Amino acid sequence: MAEGYLKGRIRREDIVTAAVGVYAEAGYHASSLREVARRAGITHAGLLYYFPAKEALLAAVLERRDAEDAEQLAAPPGLDALCRLIELAGHRADVYSRLAGEAVAADHPAHDYFERQYAAARRDAVDSFRVLAERGELREGVDPGYAGLNLVALMDGLRVQWLSNGAAVDLAGALRFYLQDLLTVPLD
Amino acid sequence: MAEGYLKGRIRREDIVTAAVGVYAEAGYHASSLREVARRAGITHAGLLYYFPAKEALLAAVLERRDAEDAEQLAAPPGLDALCRLIELAGHRADVYSRLAGEAVAADHPAHDYFERQYAAARRDAVDSFRVLAERGELREGVDPGYAGLNLVALMDGLRVQWLSNGAAVDLAGALRFYLQDLLTVPLD
Repeated sequence: MAEGYLKGRIRREDIVTAAVGVYAEAGYHASSLREVARRAGITHAGLLYYFPAKEALLAAVLERRDAEDAEQLAAPPGLDALCRLIELAGHRADVYSRLAGEAVAADHPAHDYFERQYAAARRDAVDSFRVLAERGELREGVDPGYAGLNLVALMDGLRVQWLSNGAAVDLAGALRFYLQDLLTVPLD
Repeated sequence: MAEGYLKGRIRREDIVTAAVGVYAEAGYHASSLREVARRAGITHAGLLYYFPAKEALLAAVLERRDAEDAEQLAAPPGLDALCRLIELAGHRADVYSRLAGEAVAADHPAHDYFERQYAAARRDAVDSFRVLAERGELREGVDPGYAGLNLVALMDGLRVQWLSNGAAVDLAGALRFYLQDLLTVPLD
């Protein structure tokens, strides 16, 4: 029974991985469970056993992102947390940029999810900049609120250009420049 | 005959306006010419007279954007050009954010268009920051290349969060803060 459970879990994760690929290419609206099943090498009926509706699969894709974030971003607010954030910017799967753009529409099933994500990302970044300010590590005149909001937006915006043409956009360099320019202490 | 031509042009513009609305909501891939025709109040066959293929309509939507940009952004490189750019950020239709996200995929029919657009936007912004540097209006240590790239990315990224939740994101304030912080002269 434990083995069957494990097998089911692996199958479920395979389907979520296939969905990440399909959403990255076609977005959520234009994709179908049939296409995800095909890519996961499972029948349509087999997929419906794990995910009876399209929205359930989307929820599983977003849950995976949360789990990855929780693992990779766990750090107390401050310079380390910001450095970890910008280091990860280039490793984030493009599926989330794709879905976030689509989810701007208020009736998109991931709209509330991304609104919460953005609110949390802004709050975390602003908290880190506030800690820097208290420690005298933030250049004078820099507002922690705008610095945090702009960092989150910058990561998103750079990722779009970098995904579009990686050779033309120095994603890591641009983020390091942005952060270093706000600090009184050297990065690294 | 001149009247017939004018009527045709107006009808064509109505269709493009309807397409902007449909793309903003559903993106390009998930939208159909039938839906655009319905919204423009024209038959499907009538629409095909003006736009025989889906890609021709997309091209017309992007051409309209170019015409708007040319009109609104014409200014020699420098502080005025940058101020005009950030003032317009909040007025840009959300359809372009939507399409740009979708067009990250290399096989999207608007992929090359957005790549050229981004390259031109970066070049213009960097040119303006170089002019500021020559005039001593750029804070010491600020790299015009990164400053320009980051401004273009920031506008994109802020727009996504602002379209998602306008009450939580001070788009205009964040852009002014970003620009002012790079300058040795006051904005306005």
